[in-house]
Amino acid sequence: MPHVDPPIVLLTCGDPAGIGPEVVVKAWGVASLHARARLRVVADAAMLARVLAERTGLPRLGIRRIDASDGRVSAVEEVLVIEPPAAARGDVVTGRATAAGGGLAAAAVLAAATLVRAGRAQAIVTGPLHKEALRAAGYDVPGHTELLARDCGLSDDDVSMMLWLPAESGAGGLGVVHVTLHEPLARALTRITTAGIVQAGVRLSGLLEPLLAAAPSGRRPRIAVAALNPHGGESGLFGDEEQRIVAPAVRQLQDAGVDASGPLPADTLFLRAGRGAFDGVVALYHDQGHIPVKLLGMHRAVNITLGLPFVRTSVAHGTAFDIVGTAAADPASMVAAIAAATRLVAAGWPLRAAAASAAARATP
Amino acid sequence: MPHVDPPIVLLTCGDPAGIGPEVVVKAWGVASLHARARLRVVADAAMLARVLAERTGLPRLGIRRIDASDGRVSAVEEVLVIEPPAAARGDVVTGRATAAGGGLAAAAVLAAATLVRAGRAQAIVTGPLHKEALRAAGYDVPGHTELLARDCGLSDDDVSMMLWLPAESGAGGLGVVHVTLHEPLARALTRITTAGIVQAGVRLSGLLEPLLAAAPSGRRPRIAVAALNPHGGESGLFGDEEQRIVAPAVRQLQDAGVDASGPLPADTLFLRAGRGAFDGVVALYHDQGHIPVKLLGMHRAVNITLGLPFVRTSVAHGTAFDIVGTAAADPASMVAAIAAATRLVAAGWPLRAAAASAAARATP
Repeated sequence: MPHVDPPIVLLTCGDPAGIGPEVVVKAWGVASLHARARLRVVADAAMLARVLAERTGLPRLGIRRIDASDGRVSAVEEVLVIEPPAAARGDVVTGRATAAGGGLAAAAVLAAATLVRAGRAQAIVTGPLHKEALRAAGYDVPGHTELLARDCGLSDDDVSMMLWLPAESGAGGLGVVHVTLHEPLARALTRITTAGIVQAGVRLSGLLEPLLAAAPSGRRPRIAVAALNPHGGESGLFGDEEQRIVAPAVRQLQDAGVDASGPLPADTLFLRAGRGAFDGVVALYHDQGHIPVKLLGMHRAVNITLGLPFVRTSVAHGTAFDIVGTAAADPASMVAAIAAATRLVAAGWPLRAAAASAAARATP
Repeated sequence: MPHVDPPIVLLTCGDPAGIGPEVVVKAWGVASLHARARLRVVADAAMLARVLAERTGLPRLGIRRIDASDGRVSAVEEVLVIEPPAAARGDVVTGRATAAGGGLAAAAVLAAATLVRAGRAQAIVTGPLHKEALRAAGYDVPGHTELLARDCGLSDDDVSMMLWLPAESGAGGLGVVHVTLHEPLARALTRITTAGIVQAGVRLSGLLEPLLAAAPSGRRPRIAVAALNPHGGESGLFGDEEQRIVAPAVRQLQDAGVDASGPLPADTLFLRAGRGAFDGVVALYHDQGHIPVKLLGMHRAVNITLGLPFVRTSVAHGTAFDIVGTAAADPASMVAAIAAATRLVAAGWPLRAAAASAAARATP
């Protein structure tokens, strides 16, 4: 078997005033990640040095600036840093949203995107942003995802997100995709459509395949589609959206080759999913997916962006300004995000997902 | 201190074709319950004898028929049975919904209600019914709660329900009351009102007080009110129900002396509640409360009915026809329901709750 260098994976710290730099250096200290990827942090090296010197509870690591063309492997002892070409250098205040913090965060992620699109790296893993800091820095976007989408010439609607909750031990986990997300619940209810559910289910299944590659061979991802109403509508007594909208979507997903079940009452569905009965869930609105994912293990949840021309994963937590520098920041989500990115690159995603999606669309 | 006999608590098995009789006799085997209550099962003794003889995984217990006027204490070795005056004796088929099963279930709970109202007992704890069996037997009600309400001359709107999740160890736990419940989500959204939230919060606080009696003295129940929209509406960006409807209700609750917080984003709220930050949650719609309660520990959840003139608690699970007779039925919910009923009787509930509610209404 020929030797293949592991993929180059770029980490960004998100807002330097938050816990992002801490979870990045803590994750850097996890040896097994370096066996699967050549890691680099895209950041202002001086900022990272300050974080390592001033905040408690971090591993003692060296810092080495390298060029983007440097192909060396990474190792636990020394953080390899690629500096963004024009890193802003205003005053970042630890634990506070500032334009300087937002600017550094955006500069790093845009530099990382440029490197990935130029073929210098294979994936981006992002730390937590602060929306207000980003806005103060002149970036009027809700977050990373839209920033990256626009940088790639895509619209916000072209991209979507999967919440990925890796199993606590072993392979597998649970993926959740939402049909509607950041809008008032009353409006979301009017925008849940059969087509939207089908699209979410196809994307979810396509993304779960590489993530479940270690599962028994040949098993397609088992997708559950949540019902909207109490008890799944109780045969029409508590609403007819299950019959009118959700059930036809499940049939279309099945016809397209997706192993889909539903509509299933949302409360028992997540109980079963948490016990391993499903690999993925299509949630119809924000809280329907976020309440259970947070309870099932938010600290290790990962965001994976669908629709970008490259692999991008992210921590699912925020900047947590209240615990910055206290050693309390848990790197589990960052570690899981790096592991997921590595697995997706190894599986040739997103190209394979695009092909699967095209095949699904071609199904009559 | 004068000796006071523990209260008489009546257990019913729900549908005899389900796991109800199994969880009742398993709970009977928990010695600590008999120290707090004089237990009786209101059931057809022949049915109970058959269950004990034919189903596996049950403790070996004797059965003794007693009269409703018999005040003896109960003990683990022998199930004390009060037979309903006119128990139907059709053919119950284990694991199947039949009119005979529904009839036995309804006869038992109505007989229990008659005894409690006559002062012969202080509380009822009910096993799981099967709605179709109940309907087949001629009772056109969704469940126990409405059956009892109508038997007491009350309307369905007079009664409501709290889900109670006792802590895994020690005192305390988490109570959840819903503002809307069994109706289509789209319609529920139009029926979430400030007045409805206030009523739910007052009831919840009044019911939690006796349940938390073992908590540090003087602490009022800490009530969290859930937001409706993603991120709690994100300052109006994702909906204005938080500002229009929920926030005014929280202020009114605070003015009425309830320790209320909110509106709080539902996903992080339940994460915090699960870690003990709150004693009770006002949920705005069915799945918002049921998804997290099921994940936090449905097997030990209890239903407590508010609005009846006596104490009635219930298991929060169903008849589980698929595991009848397999020894798999978990009695945790029945044990917790008996413990909760005993605690409520000891605290003088529901009289005290009615007084508290009246006081809250009298607050200008």
